[in-house]
Amino acid sequence: MRPVESSPIRDLLALTAHPEMISFAGGLPAPELFDLDGWRRAFDRALTGPDARRNLQYAPTEGNLALRGLVAERLTARGVPTGAEDVLVTTGSQQALTVVAATLLGPGAVVAVEEPTYLAALQCFRMAGARPVPVTTDEDGMVPGSLAEVLERERPSLVYLVPNFANPTGRTLTAARRLAVTELAAAHGVWVVDDDPYGELRYRGEPLSPLAGEGVVSLGSLSKICAPGLRLGWLRAPAALMPRLVVAKQAADLHTSTVDQAAAAIYLAETDLEAHLATLRTEYRTRRDAMIAALPGAVPDGTRWTDPDGGMFIWLHLPGAVDTATLLRGALREQVAFVPGAPFFATTPDPSTMRLSFTTNTPDQIVEGMRRLARALGE
Amino acid sequence: MRPVESSPIRDLLALTAHPEMISFAGGLPAPELFDLDGWRRAFDRALTGPDARRNLQYAPTEGNLALRGLVAERLTARGVPTGAEDVLVTTGSQQALTVVAATLLGPGAVVAVEEPTYLAALQCFRMAGARPVPVTTDEDGMVPGSLAEVLERERPSLVYLVPNFANPTGRTLTAARRLAVTELAAAHGVWVVDDDPYGELRYRGEPLSPLAGEGVVSLGSLSKICAPGLRLGWLRAPAALMPRLVVAKQAADLHTSTVDQAAAAIYLAETDLEAHLATLRTEYRTRRDAMIAALPGAVPDGTRWTDPDGGMFIWLHLPGAVDTATLLRGALREQVAFVPGAPFFATTPDPSTMRLSFTTNTPDQIVEGMRRLARALGE
Repeated sequence: MRPVESSPIRDLLALTAHPEMISFAGGLPAPELFDLDGWRRAFDRALTGPDARRNLQYAPTEGNLALRGLVAERLTARGVPTGAEDVLVTTGSQQALTVVAATLLGPGAVVAVEEPTYLAALQCFRMAGARPVPVTTDEDGMVPGSLAEVLERERPSLVYLVPNFANPTGRTLTAARRLAVTELAAAHGVWVVDDDPYGELRYRGEPLSPLAGEGVVSLGSLSKICAPGLRLGWLRAPAALMPRLVVAKQAADLHTSTVDQAAAAIYLAETDLEAHLATLRTEYRTRRDAMIAALPGAVPDGTRWTDPDGGMFIWLHLPGAVDTATLLRGALREQVAFVPGAPFFATTPDPSTMRLSFTTNTPDQIVEGMRRLARALGE
Repeated sequence: MRPVESSPIRDLLALTAHPEMISFAGGLPAPELFDLDGWRRAFDRALTGPDARRNLQYAPTEGNLALRGLVAERLTARGVPTGAEDVLVTTGSQQALTVVAATLLGPGAVVAVEEPTYLAALQCFRMAGARPVPVTTDEDGMVPGSLAEVLERERPSLVYLVPNFANPTGRTLTAARRLAVTELAAAHGVWVVDDDPYGELRYRGEPLSPLAGEGVVSLGSLSKICAPGLRLGWLRAPAALMPRLVVAKQAADLHTSTVDQAAAAIYLAETDLEAHLATLRTEYRTRRDAMIAALPGAVPDGTRWTDPDGGMFIWLHLPGAVDTATLLRGALREQVAFVPGAPFFATTPDPSTMRLSFTTNTPDQIVEGMRRLARALGE
């Protein structure tokens, strides 16, 4: 028997479906920015012509070869030389995480994580029977000195982190720390899982190289840069690990939707994704700026918040002994939603924290939502 | 760490990709019978109109409500009164199996199975840390007396079976045994998992009622009746179990492809699926008849085989101390493929067995393939 614990985000999303609600809660991309025409054409193409019937048939577990090649090209362009054979297509990067956990973690295993970290990753590790152990994390991401200490003391099986614009904090691991983290993990023979759904959504500064090395498994996804409803993610893994990951993926769902993969291969081959990303970055930058500008007027004096260079999230610490889960009720009465921070902690939750997402609402909606938040927090 | 064992079917499929090969190995539906135009229109509709952007967005873990309702209607029509809320959409029924295993099986758990049974189910149970225990199975499916003995002796957590046209044997559990199996399991407080991908592909005789009751979880899929590349399956579970299954599904991949689910809801609402099923049944019946007719001339004297009322598979026992895994090499030289039977056994494999699928080839191809098989087995 496994724990029967639902996602607080999921339960909360149920509350925020009301049309008058301004939700900063979800980690949803903006649907009005989906390239709807491009995807409709891609699906039509996938179901037309000589490959059409093959695109409705069973397919190899590893994924569509053209799609794997296109993903490999993008990873190579970002500084990690990758071949199609290094890429396994997954049903969203959530499944990549589950496949990695099923492969690398047995009951009682330990996973070193940022504190706070992505809560669905915590749930996934716990369902695999593993124990997440926090590593101290500051403005520059995971602290190597703390990681060294955790590696010695806890002997984890893997280190999990979101190096770019982390969920929930929006923080980015510095270049020097990227090197330090991978070197420390390699010295202890421990896997590093680099979960990078947001890396291409940078609004300020220069991109940093992804974590790399023989002990690194990288996870990526089309969810934030194209559309999450496609459930198309991938993992990049060293050749020695790939056969075991493929077996776990096969047990999970045989393979990812053939037609979705075929449409994605067509879409990525024929679309100027860089132009689409430029549009996303411009729009999301404006939304982040609107939220950052509105924050000082919306939160109590003494509140601290992160100022992310990219991604979707701002992380807040309210002053005093407040519990944001309690404050959420007042916020929902004002028709504004956020995610209380406690579930993102591996061990000791800080109830004064909360996560705001700036991607789903227009700047005007953000301004209005922050007004409502001010009323809720000022009550 | 989990076992690193790949699927023999999967490795074999890699060998049978050659265009001259006539493969009776895979469990693939015939691609020329896919309703390609219907699915192309359904995807186009899903990505047009007011819901189009929602159909590319994140969606509830339980699945598309319209699709759940349509699945529930079909189950109700087949004799199991079902509401949309009783249905969880999964990424193929392979994922339904994995979700059930993650929810109901802990390390060391026991699963009672038919012998032989679906090998990916065996793999899935083993990956969950559980131990499959065989129940004696004859022409009429699982033998209740043997099940009673296994329930007493092994205290399994669940009973897994494919009651209609089982994989690999093609056998069907009789109505009397359906009742006996569910009553026995209920008396021991043990879950029954009714895996039914082939139930609507009956070529002879009257449909039997699905297994039913508060302790039954039913798995279904569009893979064999529409197209497997969609990766659309479902499970029907008692209300008390559903929340835990939803948590496991969420950990697996958050939810199944939104666009595939939307297309399926549109397709099922607007298509005469009964007419499509009638076409499939007529064509597959002809193919089964062609293979059954060719069998006596293709196999050694003393070979026994099943005569399935539906589904995709015929199961053979060759006479004498032969190993079909060895015979497969000669068959592949003759450009014909089958699946050796050994991997389908939970405990003691019978190496003289093999599985033939009759769905993927036309009657003419079947006749030619059986000629090649005769040469391979006669060498």
